[in-house]
Amino acid sequence: MPRAVYSPTDHDADALYIARAHVPDAFLCVEYAGNRIGLFSALEYDRMKATGAFTHVLSLEQYIEKTKEVYELESPSPGDMLALLAVELEVERVLVGARFPALLLRQAEERGLAIDVAEGPLFPERQVKSDAEAAQIRMGNRAACAGFAELERMLAAATVRGDGALLLDGEPLTSERARSAIGVACLRMGGFAFGTIVAGGDQACDPHCEGYGQLRAGELIIADIFPRMADSGYHGDMTRTYIKGCPSREQRRLVQTVAEGQNMAIERIRAGADGRAIHLAVTDYFNSKGYPTGKLDGRNAGFFHGLGHGLGLEVHEAPRMNRSGANLMAGNVVTVEPGLYYAGLGGCRIEDNVRVSEEGSELLSEHPYDWIVE
Amino acid sequence: MPRAVYSPTDHDADALYIARAHVPDAFLCVEYAGNRIGLFSALEYDRMKATGAFTHVLSLEQYIEKTKEVYELESPSPGDMLALLAVELEVERVLVGARFPALLLRQAEERGLAIDVAEGPLFPERQVKSDAEAAQIRMGNRAACAGFAELERMLAAATVRGDGALLLDGEPLTSERARSAIGVACLRMGGFAFGTIVAGGDQACDPHCEGYGQLRAGELIIADIFPRMADSGYHGDMTRTYIKGCPSREQRRLVQTVAEGQNMAIERIRAGADGRAIHLAVTDYFNSKGYPTGKLDGRNAGFFHGLGHGLGLEVHEAPRMNRSGANLMAGNVVTVEPGLYYAGLGGCRIEDNVRVSEEGSELLSEHPYDWIVE
Repeated sequence: MPRAVYSPTDHDADALYIARAHVPDAFLCVEYAGNRIGLFSALEYDRMKATGAFTHVLSLEQYIEKTKEVYELESPSPGDMLALLAVELEVERVLVGARFPALLLRQAEERGLAIDVAEGPLFPERQVKSDAEAAQIRMGNRAACAGFAELERMLAAATVRGDGALLLDGEPLTSERARSAIGVACLRMGGFAFGTIVAGGDQACDPHCEGYGQLRAGELIIADIFPRMADSGYHGDMTRTYIKGCPSREQRRLVQTVAEGQNMAIERIRAGADGRAIHLAVTDYFNSKGYPTGKLDGRNAGFFHGLGHGLGLEVHEAPRMNRSGANLMAGNVVTVEPGLYYAGLGGCRIEDNVRVSEEGSELLSEHPYDWIVE
Repeated sequence: MPRAVYSPTDHDADALYIARAHVPDAFLCVEYAGNRIGLFSALEYDRMKATGAFTHVLSLEQYIEKTKEVYELESPSPGDMLALLAVELEVERVLVGARFPALLLRQAEERGLAIDVAEGPLFPERQVKSDAEAAQIRMGNRAACAGFAELERMLAAATVRGDGALLLDGEPLTSERARSAIGVACLRMGGFAFGTIVAGGDQACDPHCEGYGQLRAGELIIADIFPRMADSGYHGDMTRTYIKGCPSREQRRLVQTVAEGQNMAIERIRAGADGRAIHLAVTDYFNSKGYPTGKLDGRNAGFFHGLGHGLGLEVHEAPRMNRSGANLMAGNVVTVEPGLYYAGLGGCRIEDNVRVSEEGSELLSEHPYDWIVE
């Protein structure tokens, strides 16, 4: 069945997967029997002919005229054009993704086209990464590593004020300042590190808190960097946890346990393994070490997010390794990012990513785990 | 009628408009009678309570349990939850945007909820920018200006090889190198400049070509920078055209004509003005000066894109000023970006943006128009 997408490439990774070129405005494209058909206005037509991955680039202006004639319309909608495209392809149904725009769905249905909405991924083949795709993800991770190196440099060069506040070049070392410097380091490697987390102390116990304000000696600092490569659109995604100064025994034990959880998970990853079972095994391991998951003083505590997720054109994509995760396939690229969070003690997350193989997995992210910065 | 959105904040600006905080994964939210209701998992719940703009943050886990009970389901979908939310709000219909996910539409309809799909913007009020929003757009433009300053510095410092190629610090000055330096300059101002165009010569005649390879003296170089502020999500959007060395008479005339077209457009902008009429007036003016629009040797030439578009949480949003543009309203922020493109001669585009008022407009982007770099 033809698969249809309507989106800018930045909002729906399926559009980028088909086009293999950045298109800032929504466009209609259909994949069918190895053909990739795209409709583009004059603004994009020549560029898509030259650089897009389409087998057929159609002129949007011409297709509008054709749709006007065939359906006797004043101003055809993209949904009308999708319906006409289906007629020309001699099909009665097309398949769209969960995120296909509601308006187009309605328009095409009114024009008589039957549309099936995929509950899972529209392009399941996106979950199996080629060597070229794995190489792009590695590049994303190398950009992330440049960010870690920059943060380590800043933490090492920082001095500690009497109250624990970190100073760098006489100015407060804040989450914002570190995030900005990490962003520059990533960009020099070709990656946009949007949403980088540099969160210390209890802030890090909200796993999606980006972090703000003064960083301090003696607190665990989580840095989570997931740059998108500007050229290809593929992401890296890595997390390291740091401390400036000497950690407490409890902090050491927390970090060590998370690292053990990660190793345990990576050892279990192979084609056919159950992502849910691996997630639960890590949860159980943490429990056995005295790190339970649940509500504590009204806040979520412990290991209350998924163990990992697919990584590629989206930071979060299929397959998932969590409480509702599925079986892994050879070629999947998944993050492995256990974490433990307890307000008062702080948070620790360690994240790498691997490509699944029949025998086990191949590490796509490489950066030291030295977490104590003197 | 309640308005519903389901998206990560990076993929649908309406989600960011409601949440006023970054949320990397899709979430369900409903705006109704001044209330902003959001459903969040444990991963986001505490953070949204603390930093989101919601009047009601509901626990996704609890709402899943409730939906299971009410509808006697094993695993309720987000569409089931939207249907239950509508029941609790005592409404029979909800309104969603054109980009609302098709799968949720289907799920909620199957659960008996009537859904209207807005053909225009779901939040028309987004088109009228407050002073605070205009200030954020100004910040985006200031980030863009830092990019222009960096490019001007590079062009000024560049030396010209015998064949016209530009060299900086002994290395070729390429589009990629300029784009990377511009990105760093923007990021230091807090903006992510994704998709920056630095295109010289005939490359610039494809208005969405990002530009690649060697930059040269004597060719027109278009730089289009539209950074997204990391904190707020608002964009700047500005374009300047440069030349290194002495321009030809034809290049001077092209740039002067585009600048005149821009001035002419800005003078006509005010509340109530017809965006289509302004676009056509500029097209006519270019025609009268001997710059026609149409196909030339099989390529699009002349002024073949819209005069401008709304700017805010999206780089391209309503209202448009093009062949199908609408009337402008006080508070609209629109770009004004006429351009002329002729292969062989090169391209020129000049872009600023203004906030529409009853009397005329207020310029939100300020940067010199000095285009000749010695």
